[in-house]
Amino acid sequence: MQFHLNGFRPGEPLHLEASGEALPHGDGVPAEVDVLIVGCGPAGLTLAAQLAAFPDIRTCIVEQKDGPMQLGQADGIACRTMEMFEAFEFAGRVMAEACWINEVTFWKPDGTDAGNIVRHGRVQDTEDGLSEFPHVILNQARVHDFYLETMRNSPSRLEPHYSRQLLDVKVDADAQDHPVTVRLERTDAAHAGQVETLKARYVVGCDGARSAVRKSIGLQLVGDSANQAWGVMDVLAVTDFPDIRYKSAVQSGSGNLLVIPREGGYLVRLYVEMDKLGEAERVSARNITIDKLVATAQRIFHPYTLDVKEVPWWSVYEIGQRICHKYDDADRNGGRPRVFIAGDACHTHSPKAGQGMNFSMQDTFNLGWKLASVLRGQAVPELLDTYSEERQVVAQQLIDFDREWARMFSDRAKKTEVEGAETSGVDPKEFQRYFEQHGRFTAGMGTHYRPSMICGEAKHQHLAGGFVIGTRFHSAPVVRITDAKPLHLGHVGKADGRWRFYAFEGQAGGVEALCRFLAESPDSPVLRYTREGQDIDSVFDIRAIFQQSHRDLAFERMPGLLRPQKGRFGLRDYEKVFSPDLKSGQDIFDMRGVDRMRGALVVVRPDQYVAHVLPLDAHAELAAFFAGFMKPVR
Amino acid sequence: MQFHLNGFRPGEPLHLEASGEALPHGDGVPAEVDVLIVGCGPAGLTLAAQLAAFPDIRTCIVEQKDGPMQLGQADGIACRTMEMFEAFEFAGRVMAEACWINEVTFWKPDGTDAGNIVRHGRVQDTEDGLSEFPHVILNQARVHDFYLETMRNSPSRLEPHYSRQLLDVKVDADAQDHPVTVRLERTDAAHAGQVETLKARYVVGCDGARSAVRKSIGLQLVGDSANQAWGVMDVLAVTDFPDIRYKSAVQSGSGNLLVIPREGGYLVRLYVEMDKLGEAERVSARNITIDKLVATAQRIFHPYTLDVKEVPWWSVYEIGQRICHKYDDADRNGGRPRVFIAGDACHTHSPKAGQGMNFSMQDTFNLGWKLASVLRGQAVPELLDTYSEERQVVAQQLIDFDREWARMFSDRAKKTEVEGAETSGVDPKEFQRYFEQHGRFTAGMGTHYRPSMICGEAKHQHLAGGFVIGTRFHSAPVVRITDAKPLHLGHVGKADGRWRFYAFEGQAGGVEALCRFLAESPDSPVLRYTREGQDIDSVFDIRAIFQQSHRDLAFERMPGLLRPQKGRFGLRDYEKVFSPDLKSGQDIFDMRGVDRMRGALVVVRPDQYVAHVLPLDAHAELAAFFAGFMKPVR
Repeated sequence: MQFHLNGFRPGEPLHLEASGEALPHGDGVPAEVDVLIVGCGPAGLTLAAQLAAFPDIRTCIVEQKDGPMQLGQADGIACRTMEMFEAFEFAGRVMAEACWINEVTFWKPDGTDAGNIVRHGRVQDTEDGLSEFPHVILNQARVHDFYLETMRNSPSRLEPHYSRQLLDVKVDADAQDHPVTVRLERTDAAHAGQVETLKARYVVGCDGARSAVRKSIGLQLVGDSANQAWGVMDVLAVTDFPDIRYKSAVQSGSGNLLVIPREGGYLVRLYVEMDKLGEAERVSARNITIDKLVATAQRIFHPYTLDVKEVPWWSVYEIGQRICHKYDDADRNGGRPRVFIAGDACHTHSPKAGQGMNFSMQDTFNLGWKLASVLRGQAVPELLDTYSEERQVVAQQLIDFDREWARMFSDRAKKTEVEGAETSGVDPKEFQRYFEQHGRFTAGMGTHYRPSMICGEAKHQHLAGGFVIGTRFHSAPVVRITDAKPLHLGHVGKADGRWRFYAFEGQAGGVEALCRFLAESPDSPVLRYTREGQDIDSVFDIRAIFQQSHRDLAFERMPGLLRPQKGRFGLRDYEKVFSPDLKSGQDIFDMRGVDRMRGALVVVRPDQYVAHVLPLDAHAELAAFFAGFMKPVR
Repeated sequence: MQFHLNGFRPGEPLHLEASGEALPHGDGVPAEVDVLIVGCGPAGLTLAAQLAAFPDIRTCIVEQKDGPMQLGQADGIACRTMEMFEAFEFAGRVMAEACWINEVTFWKPDGTDAGNIVRHGRVQDTEDGLSEFPHVILNQARVHDFYLETMRNSPSRLEPHYSRQLLDVKVDADAQDHPVTVRLERTDAAHAGQVETLKARYVVGCDGARSAVRKSIGLQLVGDSANQAWGVMDVLAVTDFPDIRYKSAVQSGSGNLLVIPREGGYLVRLYVEMDKLGEAERVSARNITIDKLVATAQRIFHPYTLDVKEVPWWSVYEIGQRICHKYDDADRNGGRPRVFIAGDACHTHSPKAGQGMNFSMQDTFNLGWKLASVLRGQAVPELLDTYSEERQVVAQQLIDFDREWARMFSDRAKKTEVEGAETSGVDPKEFQRYFEQHGRFTAGMGTHYRPSMICGEAKHQHLAGGFVIGTRFHSAPVVRITDAKPLHLGHVGKADGRWRFYAFEGQAGGVEALCRFLAESPDSPVLRYTREGQDIDSVFDIRAIFQQSHRDLAFERMPGLLRPQKGRFGLRDYEKVFSPDLKSGQDIFDMRGVDRMRGALVVVRPDQYVAHVLPLDAHAELAAFFAGFMKPVR
């Protein structure tokens, strides 16, 4: 965490100085904004928190409900999401507060008494080394709280406008500026019925599965439903089921159930298989009560008891996988998107793989920096086309995974051991294997973007096999040479819209020449895209990793770009150069397969995905990559 | 972190529910309290945060200044202090925000050009395994902020009363109740001159080196001064001194200097040796200016440059070690203490070993639980005598260490290498060795309380050689068996006034019989000292550590005391039983020398110090230990 660059400021360093440019938060929504975000769920708040970092962008976020969420809904936080939270500086607090999923246990009908259940397997939840963060569980409302705090503490001091119902969204493709007009109706008692009109450059619909924004651009969710009702309940209960603090998949003779232990040590979420539904029947038709949920769970847990004391939240739903074929309105609009949709507005799936909230937040973390780049004049508008291109494909993959996962989950356990003959249904061992095989997917690491203007071809991938182009930058331990601090290299990447260049020095050298190119050449992306007067690392943040111990490196002899002077005093930044963490035996060059002779340049996008792997001396290729979508500023 | 025990509560779990018993915070101080704390420095706030956990204790804290500190003063946070911060739940935030001291470098006059300095050594700051926490540096004001937040979020909602000058403290030894009368004068413009009178059961003076509370009980600081002026300044500066982000001890031909890098990556503190003072001369007589400090630092750094851009805080001081022979007024008062002093009011020393703030906080962390136990009727008043007994002795040891450390620091570097002949002064290598040898002391691990009513004799110490009676409980990694979570055993100990029993199971058994004794015997401390209706772990929190993997243990077959039902719903607590962290290879039994055959019971005080090590079957000895100072409640 770096602060005091422009002078000492007392107090909480994450409470950033308010910008003079920030839009004041009045009672009514502003008349004109750069971005209007509709919906304060995980997708909307991730986007709002990202855009709040740029006070020069005028952002407004509105929500239909009358205040912040208090409880309920999603609770799974994948490792990948924790990595993103780290970029927003609140991963540590989530780690402390959340429940960690360390192992998963599997239960099946007892071979000798099929009315009982027995544990038949347990596996580690996340494979070793997949992420430096655990898979955790925390009330979605708390995730909202952390984002809202980030927004409040940002230079923009961004706050949502609640009690706003979207009436309509209209795009005037010919308009020079602010082409989207949105009408909102206030729903709080004091202002009920008042209509507000707002003009925006871009509108992002994060307004859920029944998205009004999606409807306004003529798109729809397409997909099928498994005709299976499920119940979900958060309970405080007394039970003798021994795995109540493990994620446990229970297949019983009388239905299936999933145990998700929750934060705080007492609360637990149970997903309970309920009625088979008729063709096209909605679960609401069944009038399933909480008493029925509890009774079903009790039957499945037999011979263990479940005495429910409090139910803070519960719901019933039918399993369905639906997706939108496009995430923006470019087709209606002369090819330039003005309205986007994200999160549940684009894709809905079963909650049991814990992907909905996670995937939704990744949607808008992908979109946020792109909107910021275009609005700030750093990138061409075509950059915005990559949002739908990238996110729609990976959502389709998620849906395919989720469908299979949900099917196995709702299936009867195959009985082979008891009767000697196979019955139809899912083999409990196969179910466990499927879980293990797809661990990377559920951890959020399944996302792999294809080559595009912002994702290079894998021509030089062999120089750093562990930093796969199109996947998220896989952090590893390093030691900062200026103070010998052990830290995670990936954690230097914050949600600040900057690109990161990780230059891994080869035995043949290369970092010095790269830095000279970046600091001096007229083709240098650093010089072309960084405005006069900005700190030299404002757009591209260059870090170098050497192979020697920090004790064998001299900071004072590093290229100037690796010890830049910044801010109003020209203070030196000491946090750009690293060594492998040799003491712990975790050498990042080995861990990530970096070519020790030639080294590698790993280019990482503002959303933490690897954009390119290049030789250190591929200066022209590097320049060409950014020339593909960035706008020179000098 | 455990929460939701008595029902789901939305929002930040560390923001505890306000207690109906809490004293409301009015404009004036309350007329009658249990404890009055004078002074909002580290000692006062540690005590206030501790007592705020008990809303049944009426606490008031007053401060002479008109609001919270913004900057300056101490900045070193020893590993031991981080362990205590973990008990207050804010160690993680301090880790994220603070500067870590990982290595220390040593500089001396250049052998070939004595006008220059050269690095001659570097050592790791803290020995491996000494603590799970790093040694960090953070503005004292931020430490205050964290405590103030803890107090505000506590069930007591405790807030300081600022702008209060202490007039006098009077004890009526014969009074039945609230024997201390304190008069305060308000100093803010709106109330200037108004005098408030307050009656208290106990008063704690945390009011600094010139403590008015100390004077009121007729005690004084005794000690000497080294007649050496030093300057200290926090600066934002540009320098080419390469170790500016390391703690660096610089001995130059023209004086000595200590570099302490600070939080945020840019700020740095410099301690600069200034004038020799005359006998009994105070530094204030010299009128040393910041310009002179800067010029002196520049001379010492030669040939490196130092261009100071901003000086948020600076000060000059003379080195002196002074201590009070007693920390309470028991002698004036028929043997029962009513007024205590803590922190700088009892001991002052040189700031360079970074001990002042750390030691002060440990003073009141020692006192806090004792005051709470006596006020809540759990312990006999004699318990309070142990505060002065324990803390005065360890302060004397600190002062002896500090005097030697400061002497070496102010000495000239001995020149052997240049001239071939020895000069007087300190050998740079010897200086480095002294630093290394005393690393445990500076890390805050030098404290070793002697046997007393709350510190057992070391008769059974061999059963757990790594948990030394009288020293702080040295945490180690374990795995919780109910959810396979890897965690630090010591972190289950929070600042909640509870005793902890860590029962390490032997191959010969013993945990089950111990639990039976504790749950059933009329001699059981758990039964004797826990009130009817309280949760069974309210006074004694029993945890067990087994030698097997968590996968080989069945929680459901554990004794009831290890899976107690608590709160208004009788929910089960799943966080009492642990395995060694076998996967990481860090077996707590090996790391802490626990007897694998016989096991051990490690009894830990509410302030994290080991009170006793006993055989698992020493039930009578255990009962006798607590009978020595606790009051039966049923």
